[in-house]
Amino acid sequence: MDLDIAFKNIARIVQLTENEKEIFKSLAEVITVKRKTHLLREGQICRFEYFILEGCLRSYYTDRSLVEHTTMFAIEGWWTGNLKSFVRNTPSEFNLVAQENSKVLRFTKEKLEKLYAKVPKFERFFRVLLQNRLLATQDRISQHLSFTASQRYLQFISKYPQIEQRVPLKHIASYLGITATYLSRLRRARMNNKFLH
Amino acid sequence: MDLDIAFKNIARIVQLTENEKEIFKSLAEVITVKRKTHLLREGQICRFEYFILEGCLRSYYTDRSLVEHTTMFAIEGWWTGNLKSFVRNTPSEFNLVAQENSKVLRFTKEKLEKLYAKVPKFERFFRVLLQNRLLATQDRISQHLSFTASQRYLQFISKYPQIEQRVPLKHIASYLGITATYLSRLRRARMNNKFLH
Repeated sequence: MDLDIAFKNIARIVQLTENEKEIFKSLAEVITVKRKTHLLREGQICRFEYFILEGCLRSYYTDRSLVEHTTMFAIEGWWTGNLKSFVRNTPSEFNLVAQENSKVLRFTKEKLEKLYAKVPKFERFFRVLLQNRLLATQDRISQHLSFTASQRYLQFISKYPQIEQRVPLKHIASYLGITATYLSRLRRARMNNKFLH
Repeated sequence: MDLDIAFKNIARIVQLTENEKEIFKSLAEVITVKRKTHLLREGQICRFEYFILEGCLRSYYTDRSLVEHTTMFAIEGWWTGNLKSFVRNTPSEFNLVAQENSKVLRFTKEKLEKLYAKVPKFERFFRVLLQNRLLATQDRISQHLSFTASQRYLQFISKYPQIEQRVPLKHIASYLGITATYLSRLRRARMNNKFLH
């Protein structure tokens, strides 16, 4: 199995020896998931931390009126899952669905603990990863408070240019907290180089 | 200097040898700060990660109308600072002020890196700490979205019973996103065992 994309991701933070890469490989499980398959449903406990080798996953919850609210996209090269449910063993509030045919690598808590014990560098790796996630979460909160919808859209496409081309508009609109109709207006305005506020 | 409270905090996650405690001591700097002293002001870069040995710190920002918004309290036994500014070397959006006469322990980035190099257990310690912070941030977002002011107040006093007695009401009201008048009503309702919704 080819884990090059995972090793490139890890190498941004810590340098692994060949032997350490072998340990990582021996503890990771690779699965393929068909488009629209759920890896996690609301109410289930998230048993895995995922790394996406190929494809795209989407996280969402459903409100009382059965409307879906997208909370996260993740594409190849990203770590994802539901940390809260994974760490605390509590029922997940979110669904995790394959938005495309995907290939993902996954670790149970037990395997992750083995990885830390055998290759302590991964403590550092996940420390930095969590630090980045926390900062991204804080950014998202402050943008939600202080950015207009138009600014949030521009921020989204500059930060995640690949996602806009791969995911239905309705999910992006939901992620940005606006209607699909309004997102279409923002896109047209952008193409005409006019910005709405 | 007595760092017992810090070692108790660390022992919840990793076990240090006497030698490792000595290394921690040699890299930490202990300072005392008088009430109302600022450790960080908006626009400055946060150069330290803090641990509170005694006292209470408060984080806030000032809006265009010069109204203060409290974003965080931290008391003895807590780590605090402004992670975003500290990690990215960017100007802080927040102020950090001593709410009481306080004694804090602080680490620069350089000292923290030395600590990781000499005692790798601290990679694990801060990984778990960041994980808890991220989950607390996610909890705070979802409570802000789904809890009433009254529920947020009850949650706050059950989670942080000491803080309510030590900090002026106006700061707690600001942290909860309500007026001080409304907070007084919630407190009276609670004492009379009536809950507002």
